[in-house]
Amino acid sequence: MYIPSFDDVLAAEARIKPHIRRTPVLQSDYLNALTGAELFFKCENLQEPGAFKVRGASNAVFGLSEAQAARGVATHSSGNHASCLSYAAMRRGIPCHVVMPSTAPQAKKDTVRRYGGKITECAPSTSAREETFAKVQAETGGDFVHPYNDPRVIAGQGTCALELNSQVPDLDAVIAPIGGGGMISGTCLTLSNIAPNTKIYAAEPDQADDAARSFRAGHIIADDAPETIADGLKVPLKDLTWHFVQSHVSDILTASEPEIIDAMKLIWKRLRIVMEPSSAVPLATILKNPDLFAGQRVGIIITGGNVDLDRLPWQ
Amino acid sequence: MYIPSFDDVLAAEARIKPHIRRTPVLQSDYLNALTGAELFFKCENLQEPGAFKVRGASNAVFGLSEAQAARGVATHSSGNHASCLSYAAMRRGIPCHVVMPSTAPQAKKDTVRRYGGKITECAPSTSAREETFAKVQAETGGDFVHPYNDPRVIAGQGTCALELNSQVPDLDAVIAPIGGGGMISGTCLTLSNIAPNTKIYAAEPDQADDAARSFRAGHIIADDAPETIADGLKVPLKDLTWHFVQSHVSDILTASEPEIIDAMKLIWKRLRIVMEPSSAVPLATILKNPDLFAGQRVGIIITGGNVDLDRLPWQ
Repeated sequence: MYIPSFDDVLAAEARIKPHIRRTPVLQSDYLNALTGAELFFKCENLQEPGAFKVRGASNAVFGLSEAQAARGVATHSSGNHASCLSYAAMRRGIPCHVVMPSTAPQAKKDTVRRYGGKITECAPSTSAREETFAKVQAETGGDFVHPYNDPRVIAGQGTCALELNSQVPDLDAVIAPIGGGGMISGTCLTLSNIAPNTKIYAAEPDQADDAARSFRAGHIIADDAPETIADGLKVPLKDLTWHFVQSHVSDILTASEPEIIDAMKLIWKRLRIVMEPSSAVPLATILKNPDLFAGQRVGIIITGGNVDLDRLPWQ
Repeated sequence: MYIPSFDDVLAAEARIKPHIRRTPVLQSDYLNALTGAELFFKCENLQEPGAFKVRGASNAVFGLSEAQAARGVATHSSGNHASCLSYAAMRRGIPCHVVMPSTAPQAKKDTVRRYGGKITECAPSTSAREETFAKVQAETGGDFVHPYNDPRVIAGQGTCALELNSQVPDLDAVIAPIGGGGMISGTCLTLSNIAPNTKIYAAEPDQADDAARSFRAGHIIADDAPETIADGLKVPLKDLTWHFVQSHVSDILTASEPEIIDAMKLIWKRLRIVMEPSSAVPLATILKNPDLFAGQRVGIIITGGNVDLDRLPWQ
């Protein structure tokens, strides 16, 4: 297991700069008054493909040798990683092979295809996915870019905290949602090097609280297919992300489904941005733990903005 | 009639700087490809009270003498001007009196009151509004800040184009929605001084096209209560805004209600921001007139983001 270093983050920053957006940091007096904290929202939902995952995906894609690039990349994902990897591959002009369950929403398939990703469908089970993916990889020679348990991906995600720290120095805390732990790991990697006094919190749905239980137990606990509206946060930690979580995270906080939906609507209304339920979990946990954050300068990573406008959760 | 000068814009910029946000400019590769133009969205919806009108309102409020400030400000409006003037007055700690029709939405009244505005309700007619407003002003001595036909307000709105031009120089065109013409007038005032080669377009709903008809006729035409989903754009031009429109605007383009709704959803989905129907009119007209903008660098003012999330127009 290669553990990425802060030098890898700096290399990633230089590598991906032409391919990602420097996203703005937004504030709301209303939300500051409501929480008693000074909140800085880092809007990764405003990346072109709508998610921070374009950072890690771009770092993997643009770091490939010419020989490997010719064979392209491959992954299995039905979420933002699939579209972000396709987007990055499109920018480099190389193939991207994505294994997706046949049951994935049509909109997700459409996005991957719009970015030139080649989808191979599989039955919606872990064994079918692994079998299909092995076949696709053998046939294409595509380099496997895991959605989060990959040092290149974690180093890429670490560039987000680097940007945030330059936009808003001296944060007391940074909080981000945790699913597989890619964003949190990158944040740990960066901040432990450049801002070791900034505490790092992770936020998770009550209904998919495997990372919180792992954190308390001291070892990875993986749930089988948890159900939550925060659909980006259903996946478990893996060895590499677990390393960063157990080394640098101060705590993992959780919120209920109604709390997540309320926080989502609050951000849409007060910050006036379109973001996913997953991105609302940090604010939901801050509202639930006001004493922990009162009087502090807190960075919040808004991780993604791909949401079905015809099916909003408060309707 | 005092016509504000570019020096008034520069003075406004210095005066309001501590009280407004420098809003980000966002881009979307998707929307660029769709229109064949390079679009730069200036996001005034991300102002704290959710609209560019905080600029003009703050310029008026913070330019008052101490003696006048003690008596406060007054206006009649049921839209963003009422809440932005209340917000600016709250920041200076002075009274703000707002005359609103009794039929105004409860949410609008709540926002004005949250910012400390004192509402006097009137019957929903022009005569009742004028009578009530005259009475309120006589009783309070509040300084009348018109929503747009006021040199202080126009100079304040002109700071938006100043910011945009420093964020994105060398624009071929800037397009903004037109209702009473405050934003367009401020844009004309600024760009005619600092970027005279940048063309200025105004965008208006077909169903409230009084400015477009005024433009062609060569004199102000005011409609009586037009109906459009773009509720910020129902008011007519007045002498001061007409001066700028006829002097500096290249054309006034219009779009239908379905075209406005489609453009609104497109911006929510691709730019991932929450904005009002009024703010979608410029993109709707660009999509309708692709040849006019193809290959150009175009600034689009997103004027406001106060919208009822429970009643979105595509539902």
